[in-house]
Amino acid sequence: MKILLIGASGTIGKAVAELLSNDHDIIRAGYSSGDVRVDLSDKASIQAMFDQVGCVDAVISTAGQASFGPLDQQADDDYQLAWNNKIMGHVNLVRIGHKFVNTGGSITLTSGILSRKPMAGGASVSLANGALESFVRAAALELDQFRLNIVAPAFVKETMEMMGMDSSTGISAADTAKVYALAVDGNMHGETLDVTDHL
Amino acid sequence: MKILLIGASGTIGKAVAELLSNDHDIIRAGYSSGDVRVDLSDKASIQAMFDQVGCVDAVISTAGQASFGPLDQQADDDYQLAWNNKIMGHVNLVRIGHKFVNTGGSITLTSGILSRKPMAGGASVSLANGALESFVRAAALELDQFRLNIVAPAFVKETMEMMGMDSSTGISAADTAKVYALAVDGNMHGETLDVTDHL
Repeated sequence: MKILLIGASGTIGKAVAELLSNDHDIIRAGYSSGDVRVDLSDKASIQAMFDQVGCVDAVISTAGQASFGPLDQQADDDYQLAWNNKIMGHVNLVRIGHKFVNTGGSITLTSGILSRKPMAGGASVSLANGALESFVRAAALELDQFRLNIVAPAFVKETMEMMGMDSSTGISAADTAKVYALAVDGNMHGETLDVTDHL
Repeated sequence: MKILLIGASGTIGKAVAELLSNDHDIIRAGYSSGDVRVDLSDKASIQAMFDQVGCVDAVISTAGQASFGPLDQQADDDYQLAWNNKIMGHVNLVRIGHKFVNTGGSITLTSGILSRKPMAGGASVSLANGALESFVRAAALELDQFRLNIVAPAFVKETMEMMGMDSSTGISAADTAKVYALAVDGNMHGETLDVTDHL
């Protein structure tokens, strides 16, 4: 399978690439590294990426930015980042990508458990995750040539360690990657795959 | 109780005003009618509304725009409307309104069942509803002076009739309004109140 992976240099992205490259041909996309560059905040950049890559069997995005911060300190720009990058970046992957995904293929996006299991300081991240999970659920009803799903990772052990947090409740990037493989190989459509449900 | 009701001239808004005006003092706000005018898409307009009205015990919004349409015909502007008006309009009601809600009061927003029970042609509406439900869940963790909840109406009987649809599965505006009263009078915080669960 030819798989376009956006966010390939991130903690989850690297693990997904490692897992899936055993059986598949992975095209790595990223903002500042990879086989092809893409800025999710820029619709023209997403179009240019697909024009360059051509048709694929699967698209996976483990990218998308939104910022943590106390509710009373979140600025307009923080919400705008969530909108431009995480939300519309992923919506535009579907809107533009649907012409580049072969019949029977799939697009798999990334949200996060904060949509349903929130934490203080995560309001705009929760907003973005909730937006995408509901979008995927609805958009899938109108997509019959390929499957559309979204993986909701928990906190990733490696990220927690990098941030000096107690990582005992985290889930490793390698285990998180397995859920992306399920989304690519399975037959679900319109689903939110909560990583904590798939361990 | 002094209650600021945004969207007071809408189908649900009128029913909420009628129900709550028995016991409370209602200040009606709307885009083109009411005691005070507000454009939810415009943060300055929301600030001006609160400056004019002053402190209240409760804020209810039954307003917020997002557009229906087939996924492959939804334009950038359709997503932008959902963002500017429905999503950020409501987020800004919380961000600005929290200085104007008396201690022990509440803010109640409006989403809709399409976040969890989607339909074809409703992707950007689902996106907006899902965004707001997750935002409320998360933001409530950081708000302790007032309660924040969101009501998710089902299709409203009167709206379905107005659109020439079979309204037998609809829920009347009067029954929908009762759930807003629950949110104002109850003690829930950070909750999505699905109207279909409260009949």
